[in-house]
Amino acid sequence: MRILILGADGYLGWPTALYFSQQGHTVVACDNFAKRQWRAEVGAESVTPIRTLHERVQVWREYSGRTIQLAVGDITNWSFLSALIQDVHPEAIIHYGEQHSAPFSMIDRDHAVLTQMNNVVGTLNVLWAMRDFAPDAHLVKIGTMGEYGTPNIDIEEGYLEVEHHGRRDVVPYPKQPGSYYHLSKVHDSHNMLFACRIWNLRATDLNQGVVYGIQTEETALDERLCTSFSYDECWGTVLNRFCVQAVLNLPLTVYGQGGQTRGFLDIRDTVQCVALAVQHSAPAGELRVFNQFTEQFSVAQLAEVVGKAASELGLAVQVAHVENPRVEKETHYYNAQHTRLLDLGLQPHTLSETLVESIIQTIQRYRDRIDPSLIMPKTRWRGDRG
Amino acid sequence: MRILILGADGYLGWPTALYFSQQGHTVVACDNFAKRQWRAEVGAESVTPIRTLHERVQVWREYSGRTIQLAVGDITNWSFLSALIQDVHPEAIIHYGEQHSAPFSMIDRDHAVLTQMNNVVGTLNVLWAMRDFAPDAHLVKIGTMGEYGTPNIDIEEGYLEVEHHGRRDVVPYPKQPGSYYHLSKVHDSHNMLFACRIWNLRATDLNQGVVYGIQTEETALDERLCTSFSYDECWGTVLNRFCVQAVLNLPLTVYGQGGQTRGFLDIRDTVQCVALAVQHSAPAGELRVFNQFTEQFSVAQLAEVVGKAASELGLAVQVAHVENPRVEKETHYYNAQHTRLLDLGLQPHTLSETLVESIIQTIQRYRDRIDPSLIMPKTRWRGDRG
Repeated sequence: MRILILGADGYLGWPTALYFSQQGHTVVACDNFAKRQWRAEVGAESVTPIRTLHERVQVWREYSGRTIQLAVGDITNWSFLSALIQDVHPEAIIHYGEQHSAPFSMIDRDHAVLTQMNNVVGTLNVLWAMRDFAPDAHLVKIGTMGEYGTPNIDIEEGYLEVEHHGRRDVVPYPKQPGSYYHLSKVHDSHNMLFACRIWNLRATDLNQGVVYGIQTEETALDERLCTSFSYDECWGTVLNRFCVQAVLNLPLTVYGQGGQTRGFLDIRDTVQCVALAVQHSAPAGELRVFNQFTEQFSVAQLAEVVGKAASELGLAVQVAHVENPRVEKETHYYNAQHTRLLDLGLQPHTLSETLVESIIQTIQRYRDRIDPSLIMPKTRWRGDRG
Repeated sequence: MRILILGADGYLGWPTALYFSQQGHTVVACDNFAKRQWRAEVGAESVTPIRTLHERVQVWREYSGRTIQLAVGDITNWSFLSALIQDVHPEAIIHYGEQHSAPFSMIDRDHAVLTQMNNVVGTLNVLWAMRDFAPDAHLVKIGTMGEYGTPNIDIEEGYLEVEHHGRRDVVPYPKQPGSYYHLSKVHDSHNMLFACRIWNLRATDLNQGVVYGIQTEETALDERLCTSFSYDECWGTVLNRFCVQAVLNLPLTVYGQGGQTRGFLDIRDTVQCVALAVQHSAPAGELRVFNQFTEQFSVAQLAEVVGKAASELGLAVQVAHVENPRVEKETHYYNAQHTRLLDLGLQPHTLSETLVESIIQTIQRYRDRIDPSLIMPKTRWRGDRG
């Protein structure tokens, strides 16, 4: 299969590229390295030293004899993207190419606008390019469970069957996201649903939970193949950040009461889910939606898990409840469906089976690369009016 | 009251500016005249000869002794908008300042992206500027009934009470819009809902139906005060377009079966609804949503109404069913609530009371300004793949 991966330099994009290359597919890895610039802007490097994409592709070639093609450019640039789609003629397009930090999008007006423009225009370009140059390709787009927010009813996979005043319909699940970043994905979802309907395109929206973990089968082959691992306010997801705090002997900082419950998954399951989506294409004309996570936890529960693993490694861990920089419910109902990927054959790596200790040990090796001042939140959702 | 009107050069913006000025409010009329450029691009001038905004403001000053202040600039330009909000310190911001043609947004990629960027960034800028410089102002934003699409259940005003698996919640009404323009308003609505929630702003989203009519009390005072009146593919709303076709002795072109049912309102009621929304501010922290229309009609019914009025003026009118350039249901359930503006005191001008004849007679006066080649649709939703 010819597979185009947008955002291939990222935490998830790179392991995905390796996986499909390893499986013998033709992989084109596209990135404009905007996230490296954004990271530099807030001073937040990866804990793991990540090589340039050029070097990683070279190392992979030495290891596997397989070639991942590089395509360096910005998908918001129509000239670049339309030429790329015509060149690659992809059968599947895996789209991670977005600004994906909620706090980054909340810094100020410029970052909110940058996030929405970057994400919405990039995805619009992909849809128009598919219409014109790859109408049978399957778009696999990374969405987020954060699109749904925390409604007081069960979260379904993309659509909701409604009975209202004696009539019935199946409608797009109502979205109540919690940042300008999450909103950008909601905008994408609406644009994709429309494009599939009018142009008969194939697309799968993977509403992904919070990812944890540090390596996949392929990235573990050589240190130079490793993917990024963030712990900072902007890109550090909560379990990864807790592991870093444990290593630094800092309290695990729980925002507010810690009752915020979300879906989570292991980075290896991200790769597995994307592979399942690619193997089983969406039908033409449909925006198929999968909720991509394996387990639900509250933030307080995660702190407990990390604390236990850390103490088994002899680290003394405390939990600190800090003022919540976000505007979100700290206790709420949460029950999200996630059966459709299981139906396709997903074999989850559950958190209890995951060696949180091994994540901690990897962080310990790179301990001197960590700047503790980047961990605590500086961006406040309410801004000056809080 | 200090009232800032964004998009004040437009079909609805200008009559709104006149109305509030006449009522003695301090009115600042903002526009960047982008629509004049977009009109020129497709060659679609107003049937009524509209003066520059500068001249109209001057004429109004002569007539009324009242001054409407001009603010020329682009609200997607943060420097301009943030300075404007600080200067005006508005108590109400009436936001018409968007690209509002569905066909224009569907021409090609560039027009889709232009529409979404123009509309989404403009509204984001307004929200951030309110947060920083006018936190107590009331935003009255013109949305569209087209955000809802045509679901098989009753359309409520912005929110839907749902019972699902034995639990209840009130959620944003699911949106299924039918063009990249309508999608831009859906994106705006999601952004506004979030901004109100986290920043405690006041906003009203007026999901407006299709407007018809040619003048309001104030625009009728002098020919030089008239507002625009479109008949072309891009900006001509259906009833106005039918009236032009009747005058030209052309068949009224119904897209497809003509069972497409929508909400409609008289231009005088647009002004009345906006005035009611401004008089009764939304509470802080809430995105209040009103469905702004007075009656539902199918396109076929409208053709009948116009045909009857035209024949009373001695015009022979035929109806032609043409291929539908859009992707939409041509027969469907449609029942949209619209009680909240009535509760505030709206006194509708119904279509049966409206002198469609007077619209037709006005068009007859400007008959030589009409280019019949602009009436029929050239933009097809399915594009080359149809």
